Amino acid sequence: MALLGTGVIGGGWAARLLLAGVDVRLFDPHPGAVATVDSALERARRAWAGLTAVPLPPGGSLTVHGTVAEAVAGAELIQESAPEREAVKRPLLAEASRAAAPDAIIASSTSGLRPSLLDLEMERPQRFVVAHPFNPVYLLPLVEVCGSPRTSPATVERAVAIYRSVGMQPLVVRREIDGFIADRLLEALWREALWLVADDVATAREIDDAIRYGPGLRWAAMGTFLTYRLAGGENGMRHFMAQFGPTLEQPWSRLTDVPELDDPLLDKLVAQSDAQAAGRSIDELTQIRDDCLVGVLRALRDQSFGAGEVLARTERELLARAQSVDGSGPAAGADGRLVLHHTSVVPEWLDYNGHMTESRYLHVLGDATDALLLQIGIDTVHGQSASGYYTVETHIRHLREAHLGERLYVATQLLGYGEKRLHLWHELYRHSDGALLATGEHLLLHVDRATGRTAPAAEAVLAALAEIEADQRSTEWPEAAGAHIGGR
Amino acid sequence: MALLGTGVIGGGWAARLLLAGVDVRLFDPHPGAVATVDSALERARRAWAGLTAVPLPPGGSLTVHGTVAEAVAGAELIQESAPEREAVKRPLLAEASRAAAPDAIIASSTSGLRPSLLDLEMERPQRFVVAHPFNPVYLLPLVEVCGSPRTSPATVERAVAIYRSVGMQPLVVRREIDGFIADRLLEALWREALWLVADDVATAREIDDAIRYGPGLRWAAMGTFLTYRLAGGENGMRHFMAQFGPTLEQPWSRLTDVPELDDPLLDKLVAQSDAQAAGRSIDELTQIRDDCLVGVLRALRDQSFGAGEVLARTERELLARAQSVDGSGPAAGADGRLVLHHTSVVPEWLDYNGHMTESRYLHVLGDATDALLLQIGIDTVHGQSASGYYTVETHIRHLREAHLGERLYVATQLLGYGEKRLHLWHELYRHSDGALLATGEHLLLHVDRATGRTAPAAEAVLAALAEIEADQRSTEWPEAAGAHIGGR
Repeated sequence: MALLGTGVIGGGWAARLLLAGVDVRLFDPHPGAVATVDSALERARRAWAGLTAVPLPPGGSLTVHGTVAEAVAGAELIQESAPEREAVKRPLLAEASRAAAPDAIIASSTSGLRPSLLDLEMERPQRFVVAHPFNPVYLLPLVEVCGSPRTSPATVERAVAIYRSVGMQPLVVRREIDGFIADRLLEALWREALWLVADDVATAREIDDAIRYGPGLRWAAMGTFLTYRLAGGENGMRHFMAQFGPTLEQPWSRLTDVPELDDPLLDKLVAQSDAQAAGRSIDELTQIRDDCLVGVLRALRDQSFGAGEVLARTERELLARAQSVDGSGPAAGADGRLVLHHTSVVPEWLDYNGHMTESRYLHVLGDATDALLLQIGIDTVHGQSASGYYTVETHIRHLREAHLGERLYVATQLLGYGEKRLHLWHELYRHSDGALLATGEHLLLHVDRATGRTAPAAEAVLAALAEIEADQRSTEWPEAAGAHIGGR
Repeated sequence: MALLGTGVIGGGWAARLLLAGVDVRLFDPHPGAVATVDSALERARRAWAGLTAVPLPPGGSLTVHGTVAEAVAGAELIQESAPEREAVKRPLLAEASRAAAPDAIIASSTSGLRPSLLDLEMERPQRFVVAHPFNPVYLLPLVEVCGSPRTSPATVERAVAIYRSVGMQPLVVRREIDGFIADRLLEALWREALWLVADDVATAREIDDAIRYGPGLRWAAMGTFLTYRLAGGENGMRHFMAQFGPTLEQPWSRLTDVPELDDPLLDKLVAQSDAQAAGRSIDELTQIRDDCLVGVLRALRDQSFGAGEVLARTERELLARAQSVDGSGPAAGADGRLVLHHTSVVPEWLDYNGHMTESRYLHVLGDATDALLLQIGIDTVHGQSASGYYTVETHIRHLREAHLGERLYVATQLLGYGEKRLHLWHELYRHSDGALLATGEHLLLHVDRATGRTAPAAEAVLAALAEIEADQRSTEWPEAAGAHIGGR
């Protein structure tokens, strides 16, 4: 894909695409453009390491081009993220349309300009859409897709498929409107917030607190209509409207004052925003925001709800892709051990000391077991197998601490197996210095899910195990295997 | 405390207060009042079991009273949550003020009525405040505290302290205004959302998606001002306003249409809300909402940010309280084993099969280890000790599955200890049938945090261990202790 313009939004697009394994062709005359992409990519890598244990595809490549024509050459989709001014975007989009392949989709990241104003000078405007993402683009799944009256339905359909393929949730806007959907809601709230600041009812900090300690938590999960539906009880939305009708109508018909954005308001706003930041840099705040978003997205993923559903879907697709590209057999260490699981230490795995907490060692070792099971044909992550292996016994030795952000991998050895039994040895290593952090010895039994009882594994599974055993015939037996606590 | 009125808000108050160990005196002539409280309490219990591993205090007691005067007798705070109509609330508050103790605080849960309209008929209006909570009251920390011009500063101060003591985050509203702070923001967004529905720009579902896949996730973490500050880069809010000034001013000065709440809009809204619910009952949706909120709050707690900071503070306070009331020594099982840790299986601990995932067994056993360490004077949860015990070896045997919502407890035996060494045996039991689910054998070393090296534990710690060892002298040695994988 081609990206025109970086900045916060363009850099976020680059990071999302590169992480998703998409090659990016960049045009941005600004001298800091590549640094912007690098820094977004670094943030995105860290965030995704915390977001999922599913392996990401090999990263895409970034090439930088000196002209629009060179950047868009051969691109399937061209994403424009130039400054939010019609006078800048319109000629840039026109230039891209003249150089692009005839069937390339041309998309604008505009957060509010109508597509029918932006496509006026384009060649083939039927392949133009607005695709409005949200900051940070590499984490938030939403992208609003909105065509002009000239946009062809096929263009919208193709654009939706492309954005979905990089883990996003496209929301097709039914018809052109200033600000699309999300920004109209954002603006309405923002207008009211500014009015409260202007009138000294509340400070920036207090207004943010009024959101993040209360309604903002519900918005993250459910939005506004579903939240209110719950307040109506079993009788639903009509009951809610009847119950709160008069009270509800009063404020929205009365409270429509609009603040004037003059210098005193600006000064007040700046002072309050500085006070709220309390000396924390944008870099620190951005890190905090990303860590919070990762945690929130993971929490919603565990419920398979809202934005968490998008993450779960993306993980299933990544998993399918990782399995399908794996034509070269399992990755094997020099000693014949299998290296099937890589991960990074994320903030929520830490204890108060900044070390990975003990149950996360078993979490990582368990993920390595899942990776081995996937290798022999049993998908434990998405429950698509009729049988599974259950761990009955585990012996962990903690040898060294793991810290935030460290990349880890697990080397796995098959100690033995039978029709119903699997005996595994995991060694958890730190990537940077190859230090052995922990060992895990695990005994698993094969269980038929329908009956809940142990049962022989399928022939194909046993054959895969036999193959691994043969490959590891010369691998040394781990000295510490078979030990009891504190002994050999 | 006394509660006047139940319903969604009053029931939520009751649940939060009872769980926090506060006795509740209830007045509500509605026949379903007690059932409403029971159901809220059940939800709250389940949610808090997932929210924290810190022990909750013994629950408060609920008494139901036939008159306002009887309910408010002796209460320190009286919380009114009657229907949102001035004509109902004003006389009820007046009646309460005549019967209450002279220094009792009287608070209204109103979401929008001005306190100076509600206190007009009260005796001693200086002890009246609005304290506006958010649904579900037992989970969301925000409570807006707003006095009338007649309210005394001491009343606001006392109210804030009381709400903080039950895990809430009071936000004092500087001056009386319709809708206070949060509801003005909610209404502004809601007005715009209804307008989009009325004009067929988007459906209820699409509008919710525009929030929960994008900006809602940021609102949960940061609110609106801090989010925008990040978009301005290192130059902060002034740069953001300059950069987005014209684009920003345009929508908020133009997009101020207000929808008329007529029958066609109501019908449309109801139909779209039904479609969005897709047959899921309010009960199911409420469960989903609570599970999501628990996950989001825990995620933010792990970052110690926003609403997560409130949870972290509440946990520290609960912990301090649990330690201070513990004058009776450790809880001991019949066989001399210590029972120091109770928990429930929460949704995010489950694998795809609905069983507690393997690493969560170690999580629970680790929490039991922390509880034992707390008992001997080492606080591992909040990092207030200069030294700590680090696990070096763990042997888990998984004997039975644990399922969602099951209450679990751990019985702990001291197998041995030295100056630097601790050897523990945990047995994980299900509360309902006493089934043994797993055993854990753990070897820990005592480490000085300043040097990062093993060091002898303090005398007081060793003395506490000696006492436990003496208490457990006749406790049977566990048959499976000292075993290696698959053997004895």
